[in-house]
Amino acid sequence: MTLGVIFALLCALAALVYVAFSTGWLFWQPQGNERMREIAGAIQQGASAYLKRQSLMISVAGLLVMVALTHWLGLETGVGFLIGALLSGTAGYLAMSVSVRANLRTAEAARSGLEMALQVAFRGGAIIGLLVAGLALLGVAGYYLALAPSDPSDLAGQQQALRALIGLAFGGSLISVFARLGGGIFTKGADIGGDLVGEAENRLVENDPRSPAVVADQVGDTVGDCAGMAADLFETYALTLVATMLLGGLVFCESAPGVIVYPLVLGGVSILASIVGTFFVKLEPGDTRILSALANAWTIAGVLSFILFVPVTWLLLPSSFSLADGDVLFSRWGVLGAAGIGLLLSGLVLVITEYYTSADYWPVRGIARASDSGHAPTVIAGLAVGMKATAAPVLMICAAIWGAYALAGIYGIAIAATAMLSLTGIVLALDAFGPIADNASGIAEMAAMDEPVRRVTAALDAVGNTTKAVTKGYAIGSAALVALVLFADFTHALAAAGEPLVFALEHPAVLIGLWLGALVPYLFGALAMEAVGNAAAKMVREVRRQFRERPGILNGSERPDHAGAVDLLTKAALKEMIIPAMLPLVAPLAVGFGMQWLMGDEAGALALGGMLIGTIVTGLFVAISMTAGGGAWDNAKKSIEAGNVGGMDSNAYQAAVTGDAVGDAYKDVAGPAVNPVIKVVNLVALLMVPLL
Amino acid sequence: MTLGVIFALLCALAALVYVAFSTGWLFWQPQGNERMREIAGAIQQGASAYLKRQSLMISVAGLLVMVALTHWLGLETGVGFLIGALLSGTAGYLAMSVSVRANLRTAEAARSGLEMALQVAFRGGAIIGLLVAGLALLGVAGYYLALAPSDPSDLAGQQQALRALIGLAFGGSLISVFARLGGGIFTKGADIGGDLVGEAENRLVENDPRSPAVVADQVGDTVGDCAGMAADLFETYALTLVATMLLGGLVFCESAPGVIVYPLVLGGVSILASIVGTFFVKLEPGDTRILSALANAWTIAGVLSFILFVPVTWLLLPSSFSLADGDVLFSRWGVLGAAGIGLLLSGLVLVITEYYTSADYWPVRGIARASDSGHAPTVIAGLAVGMKATAAPVLMICAAIWGAYALAGIYGIAIAATAMLSLTGIVLALDAFGPIADNASGIAEMAAMDEPVRRVTAALDAVGNTTKAVTKGYAIGSAALVALVLFADFTHALAAAGEPLVFALEHPAVLIGLWLGALVPYLFGALAMEAVGNAAAKMVREVRRQFRERPGILNGSERPDHAGAVDLLTKAALKEMIIPAMLPLVAPLAVGFGMQWLMGDEAGALALGGMLIGTIVTGLFVAISMTAGGGAWDNAKKSIEAGNVGGMDSNAYQAAVTGDAVGDAYKDVAGPAVNPVIKVVNLVALLMVPLL
Repeated sequence: MTLGVIFALLCALAALVYVAFSTGWLFWQPQGNERMREIAGAIQQGASAYLKRQSLMISVAGLLVMVALTHWLGLETGVGFLIGALLSGTAGYLAMSVSVRANLRTAEAARSGLEMALQVAFRGGAIIGLLVAGLALLGVAGYYLALAPSDPSDLAGQQQALRALIGLAFGGSLISVFARLGGGIFTKGADIGGDLVGEAENRLVENDPRSPAVVADQVGDTVGDCAGMAADLFETYALTLVATMLLGGLVFCESAPGVIVYPLVLGGVSILASIVGTFFVKLEPGDTRILSALANAWTIAGVLSFILFVPVTWLLLPSSFSLADGDVLFSRWGVLGAAGIGLLLSGLVLVITEYYTSADYWPVRGIARASDSGHAPTVIAGLAVGMKATAAPVLMICAAIWGAYALAGIYGIAIAATAMLSLTGIVLALDAFGPIADNASGIAEMAAMDEPVRRVTAALDAVGNTTKAVTKGYAIGSAALVALVLFADFTHALAAAGEPLVFALEHPAVLIGLWLGALVPYLFGALAMEAVGNAAAKMVREVRRQFRERPGILNGSERPDHAGAVDLLTKAALKEMIIPAMLPLVAPLAVGFGMQWLMGDEAGALALGGMLIGTIVTGLFVAISMTAGGGAWDNAKKSIEAGNVGGMDSNAYQAAVTGDAVGDAYKDVAGPAVNPVIKVVNLVALLMVPLL
Repeated sequence: MTLGVIFALLCALAALVYVAFSTGWLFWQPQGNERMREIAGAIQQGASAYLKRQSLMISVAGLLVMVALTHWLGLETGVGFLIGALLSGTAGYLAMSVSVRANLRTAEAARSGLEMALQVAFRGGAIIGLLVAGLALLGVAGYYLALAPSDPSDLAGQQQALRALIGLAFGGSLISVFARLGGGIFTKGADIGGDLVGEAENRLVENDPRSPAVVADQVGDTVGDCAGMAADLFETYALTLVATMLLGGLVFCESAPGVIVYPLVLGGVSILASIVGTFFVKLEPGDTRILSALANAWTIAGVLSFILFVPVTWLLLPSSFSLADGDVLFSRWGVLGAAGIGLLLSGLVLVITEYYTSADYWPVRGIARASDSGHAPTVIAGLAVGMKATAAPVLMICAAIWGAYALAGIYGIAIAATAMLSLTGIVLALDAFGPIADNASGIAEMAAMDEPVRRVTAALDAVGNTTKAVTKGYAIGSAALVALVLFADFTHALAAAGEPLVFALEHPAVLIGLWLGALVPYLFGALAMEAVGNAAAKMVREVRRQFRERPGILNGSERPDHAGAVDLLTKAALKEMIIPAMLPLVAPLAVGFGMQWLMGDEAGALALGGMLIGTIVTGLFVAISMTAGGGAWDNAKKSIEAGNVGGMDSNAYQAAVTGDAVGDAYKDVAGPAVNPVIKVVNLVALLMVPLL
């Protein structure tokens, strides 16, 4: 067993070595002319300043939570929380640092053509992806190694170590809610505000240097899409490892001790596969299928992972075993099959998301066509596409649950989730490529680089839109599986604490919990939308004010006050994020203790169980409909910019800008933040078990 | 027992006598000048033509379903279906007939001032309300009387009679899905299409006779808001009676035989109370608080109902009894308390809906303010308000579940739902007042009546917007309770059929069912939004074409082709409604039989149970967020029309028109139709029990 953990740690270190080498290569790339460096410097400065203030604010909240955890649940959980929070924050900060250095190098590389620009942008993404996966595996495996009892058959010691790991996952998830939300409000406040005044009122193109919001928009891409997403995937990955290990410890530690470290080793070999995958992103001269070049890396990493899973499964698992509380016998190959289902699901998410958000298929085309009838039809069409886009993922998730459960029971579902998320490194590489390309495109336009260069960066940017949507679908899709694992952890933990309960839908406490849980994503979404609306409205007023007070900005004789806009947004985003971010922390406490008080001891736990499922049921729909709808609106606008449905001078374009702005609030603020919100609700409930 | 049924039938007849007398009074009111009669005639003609074609289409689908029901479940169920379908269709058709005659009489009465116009419009509404409540009670009580065994202790005979009543409820619900959806697509296709070209592109005011869509819009108000809503509340009310009777029969027929007819008698006395309530809608000269005059009728009907519930409870229920499958003893006063909770809940819905949709409070004001920043902030603000508006109703529903369950177990929840819906007569009176006032306002503007007259009808119309939103909240809020009752019916029916199951959240079949059920409202909402988008786009093209081909329309020298627009929409609405309307019928069949085939016998029933709860969990959120958000957008637009945030010449007004149009699709098509969709899914599942 210890060997397995050490192997996982070595794989995590391999990821960090890859990161170090690649960063060296990246920094060695040319940085372009002075104007480009100046713009990139402004972005870097704004992003650092924002992240520092955000960190300060989160630290205060985090320390309070840590003290509470240490007091009620012991020092090991408190320290775990600290490690998770620090690693998550570090992942976000380093992701930002890489991104703001890769952006101008990508723009400069675009002078040499598409292939070179893709290499630089993707390498930047790969650094971020493997950094996050490496840090997560390092944290979970390392802290487990530090806490695990030397005697592997010491069941109580094992479970104590695993409980402390919940603290680590919780630290990551809580930071992730703040980072996702704060970054999202920042980036979309700038984007929406800038688009509304710039594009809609003054007919500037996106990234026109005359818009005072343009630098803030780039800063936002970095702190939201890059740092926020890195923190999000850190928590998603770390939490899945912890939840699966915990389930292993709770359900059948004795009959198959290898199950606890099995997820760590799966994660380890997938990192190796992901590193190999990064070398397969290649474009032949003349080939412009960027997305399929990127998808190649995913496919290779996935197939290679599965091949490596075979010996790992053979070495770590007994040939057959049964769950502690059941008499059905599962084989090790059933578990491997469940892992295969997880990998397959991650690939299917890519295909479906592409279908709903790419301009090549009818959903986006339908929105573009609806734009011709005006603003409202555009919005209605996009809302319909988003809601419709929930069907295929939900059907697939249900199929995956059915398959994984048939093969290896609830542990099969946990392994499917782990396998799906073991690809975090390569998936995040594709995602982080997006904001780098977006920034590069912004720099190329602001620095007035040549038309062919801008065409290259714009092409990368459009693909980045799809990969960003894919990763959000991937994160929330995996959340559905992980939530079931956490629910199983919760019920098993209750049973282990001497309170075995059946969460029957017939019981009113379960139903009430279900509804209150279902309310969380809705209320959170509403608060997040309101927050971004407020931030965007401030930005609109600021941009209008600058245009009014400095008439020279629009004819190019005066420079807008970029820094003022960044500063305004920093304050607005941090202020607006507080209340929504508290919701997932407070709601389970209120429901659990409230229902206990109202309906008696059991009712508290029953309502909490209902709440866990309720949150993921509506959470999945809210998140998918928002991220898919948002991506579709965005690419519908891009398709009209490219000359369809009347092109940029038409009224259809104005309507498409409206759709895109609504989609921005959907896909980059409220939607993706639902993922960590679900996790925080789940983890708070899990941590409450000893107190119920 | 038979006495109770006969008493309920007499109350239903009393409602129909009230309807007959009031209709006589209404028809006797002056009809105004020739131009008004001409316009009203056009509306009437269009509405009749639409409803006839809709009925023909539904008949085909309905006959197929009836044959299937008769074949698999027996003649009594099939005949019940036919009765329910016919009564629901009749209720819708008569509601339309009353509405198209009350509209111009209201406009004419507005010459004598607000009080007289209110009397005429409200009396029209009261006719529709009591007609629907009377027909529903007549159908359920009458068919029960025809089928019930002469020996009240014949348990098997009782249950067979009650099962046939499910057929009646199913008939009503299925017609209601079609009527809600078809009428909604029609009315909002006209409204959105007309607004976009008329108001946004050509700056016409609403109801400008130069818009080719204006008559279609009035026809739509009649067939959607009036006939559709009548069918909707018919099914809501009839179904609740049936579900509660069924539960009474299943859980404790022997110990308290009165429980089966108890809901019928509650419904009966509430009809008497509602009739009394209608006489308390009065405005003193100079008083303009229309909403509080209307709310008076509701309050009086509610309080009087509760007073009448006391002797009914004392006469029909034993002093204490326990559920068949439990040992907790409940008192008759506990049941009365649950009924009180239901009445209270219906009042709270009014207050909350008013808060979220009236221009006096911050949600609507916030949207109006956001309009100043542009189209997208308006949409974002409205989406946020809609999502936020789910919180209070959900909390209250949870509180009601808790309270009613504590007082009288699951039967308490059923009685709370019955009491809440026993006010259907008066609630629908307030609602149906809305489209009548809307139509009157349209006629007054199209017939160019004097400014003071138009001010009166406009004031009534604005209040109608809020009452329409209230009724939708009422219908969907009650649906949450009724769905739980239907779920209990389902589990008890399974137990009675020898397959007692525990619907534990730990079971993957339950979870899969939960997710697939949760998908239904989302997918249905998406399809409905798409349908209304398509219909509106056709309307936009038609209106643009008429303006282009007949340039005289805009300067008033040529009349637009109103009938052409009506005809176009009739075809579009009927075509677009087919696929979404099939969804709630097909989904439970697919899930039940599909899961049975995949995972074995039990799994089919478990998944179906999960589906029932999943549908209502997301259904509640989808419906409330859509109806509240839509109402808020509508009144935000009205508030800007009244001169706030820049008034009608501002860009804010354009943005508000966009918000209103998105809200139209939300609040009048997708949102309210979710209510019958949930019921159909539930009823299909219930009817499937013998086949599983």
